[in-house]
Amino acid sequence: MSAPGQREFFTVKTVSEALTGFRPARVTPAETIALDDALGRVPAEPLSAPHALPGFARATVDGFAVRAADTYGASEGLPSYLELSGEAPMGRAPEAEVRPGSAVAIATGAPLPPGADAVLKVEHTQAATAELLEVLKPVTPGEGMVRADEDAAPGAELVPAGRPLRAQDLGMLAAAGIVELPVHARPRVTIVSTGDELVPSSQEELETGQVRDSSAPALAALVREAGGEPRFAGIVPDDRDVLATRLREALPECDVLVVSAGSSVGARDETAAAIASLGEPGIWCHGLALRPGKPTLLADCGGVPVIGLPGNPRSALVVFRLIGMPIVRIAGGCTDPPPEPTTRARLARDLPSAAGRLDIVQVRLSGEEAEPLFGSSSLLSILTAADGYLVVPEAATGLAAGSEVEVTLYR
Amino acid sequence: MSAPGQREFFTVKTVSEALTGFRPARVTPAETIALDDALGRVPAEPLSAPHALPGFARATVDGFAVRAADTYGASEGLPSYLELSGEAPMGRAPEAEVRPGSAVAIATGAPLPPGADAVLKVEHTQAATAELLEVLKPVTPGEGMVRADEDAAPGAELVPAGRPLRAQDLGMLAAAGIVELPVHARPRVTIVSTGDELVPSSQEELETGQVRDSSAPALAALVREAGGEPRFAGIVPDDRDVLATRLREALPECDVLVVSAGSSVGARDETAAAIASLGEPGIWCHGLALRPGKPTLLADCGGVPVIGLPGNPRSALVVFRLIGMPIVRIAGGCTDPPPEPTTRARLARDLPSAAGRLDIVQVRLSGEEAEPLFGSSSLLSILTAADGYLVVPEAATGLAAGSEVEVTLYR
Repeated sequence: MSAPGQREFFTVKTVSEALTGFRPARVTPAETIALDDALGRVPAEPLSAPHALPGFARATVDGFAVRAADTYGASEGLPSYLELSGEAPMGRAPEAEVRPGSAVAIATGAPLPPGADAVLKVEHTQAATAELLEVLKPVTPGEGMVRADEDAAPGAELVPAGRPLRAQDLGMLAAAGIVELPVHARPRVTIVSTGDELVPSSQEELETGQVRDSSAPALAALVREAGGEPRFAGIVPDDRDVLATRLREALPECDVLVVSAGSSVGARDETAAAIASLGEPGIWCHGLALRPGKPTLLADCGGVPVIGLPGNPRSALVVFRLIGMPIVRIAGGCTDPPPEPTTRARLARDLPSAAGRLDIVQVRLSGEEAEPLFGSSSLLSILTAADGYLVVPEAATGLAAGSEVEVTLYR
Repeated sequence: MSAPGQREFFTVKTVSEALTGFRPARVTPAETIALDDALGRVPAEPLSAPHALPGFARATVDGFAVRAADTYGASEGLPSYLELSGEAPMGRAPEAEVRPGSAVAIATGAPLPPGADAVLKVEHTQAATAELLEVLKPVTPGEGMVRADEDAAPGAELVPAGRPLRAQDLGMLAAAGIVELPVHARPRVTIVSTGDELVPSSQEELETGQVRDSSAPALAALVREAGGEPRFAGIVPDDRDVLATRLREALPECDVLVVSAGSSVGARDETAAAIASLGEPGIWCHGLALRPGKPTLLADCGGVPVIGLPGNPRSALVVFRLIGMPIVRIAGGCTDPPPEPTTRARLARDLPSAAGRLDIVQVRLSGEEAEPLFGSSSLLSILTAADGYLVVPEAATGLAAGSEVEVTLYR
């Protein structure tokens, strides 16, 4: 082991400094995709309505298209009478017209006949004869219908750029006939694992000292959640030159580079040196005021964000959720990330914490109570047992049992 | 138009009755998939550790493997001295042994040498000579290390059945060497659109009265969010026989059948009749105490859940989020659905509501305020403008401006 020391943390930043200040230039280009594949994708430009929507005035109730003025003053005691003159069909232009003193039967969704300015609900009418309608309640103009441009005026923005598309956004685009659209390409996120102790997760038999690479598949899942496309660049031994070569090969082919570092201080030093050799402006921070996750490195290598993660699996996943997923989103053009599920709970026991760093504490929920889970950063079981995590802010020196806390839920 | 009336709602249920009481038997079978494809998939059985994890006692700090008893009483003022005897390597079994009075250098993650029961942090030591270590602080047995079975004992459950796999679950399975696993097949959800007014979203030019099918693509997105695999069965005119034929063809090939009904009362009647003819036990409820979304139909056709949705796009999406997505999840073996994002806000204005039905109200958030969005159920723009929705419970007759409300966020 090379002499361990305190020399590794040169430029410690807070998590919020990292989230606001670390901004490599890389953003993926636009590509055109089919609407059916667009859930969660990020529009590369705002999309607007090519024409008015729904495109024609439409009934929103089952009833009778009328001139509203013909119904004024009608009541159950003193009904008005309108002459029934046909039916407005679904799906095509009406042939009938609503003349003064007349009404045309209409179903929800059908286009309003010319002359009509409201639709009277069937419940507020009664058939007097086959040709005569009794009106029991007046309507005002615009009632029981939507205007031709009420869902969208021509040119109105249907979805903004930068916000992942939701189900209803796809519906709106379909309504407008937009079946192909420009979105940011999924950022290619290459994951390099380092550590003399690591073997692939597919290796059945282990020698003493070997562990399977658990971080890479878990990180790949978080990359997918953030809209990226993970790629594995394999396991590299703790050797600066081999690692530097692998990273240099990977860099031109990716939009974000993630190094899941070896766990020892020596391995961390090698990783830092290899990343520092990758390009300008280079290392942005070396160390985060965060627990777990202090040995995190962020670098901007020719515009590509490079994230050096701690070797402990739990630390690596905590850092990647907090810092890595936002970096992947930004590289994918997402300026308005989807909300995280959270819940409020009461802390089941005192939680000590040191001032000056952010603490991430996994919790198990039972009813209204959040039970903190303690243990080594090397234990994945703390993450799998947890329902979510809470954040103890930098300024706090701990939280008392019974405090109300906001828990971010894993999903 | 066939004579409209009040006859359509025979068996109105509440939303919570539907969520707890409607339970067709269909659950998808298990299939084996690769771990890398397993994010969000639902294990068909609990998966347990084939051996202890990490599998060997491991250092969790950089420092020196020791016998804890050899450090008792050590302090900065009165250090203990241990004989340095080699280094424990990463990734393979240690050759050195920790004899009484000796210490072996060790890096985070390396296996503990025989004889050691703790790891002393490098910060609490000082090199006296090349062969002699000064111990400045005592350790207790188990400190600075994890036991061979601390992440998982052999046979311990790693992930439960029925809960969608999260990133950390994939990490844990990878650590255990489980690279293939049995999950429930994605439920095949067939979407049939009906309505004489509907044309495919790809149709560029519209005649008056025609609208593009916006519900099907939006519903498909919600199906995907719920872990299902959407399939489109096309647009069927408002004709009972044609619809019944199309549904009978679709039923054997799907795990959930969704009928996005025509909007008129006549079309709803045809849909109900066609669904009723599909199989036993048949229609479970016809009408939900919900706004928007009253004209909802739920049926159990030979174990396959069939959902008849209202014709208005906004109503259809509200109902499918509330009722359809849970049905898709259950068909996919998911008994423990992922949490929804929510936030608390203050209502910006009074919200009227009728007692006896659940009201779903879309809101736009600005700061702490939730601004309700009003308008016809036919307008998709209300959903695209919304950040989320709030629920006015059955018992309430409205909410006052300034009330604290919980908003479920769209993502």
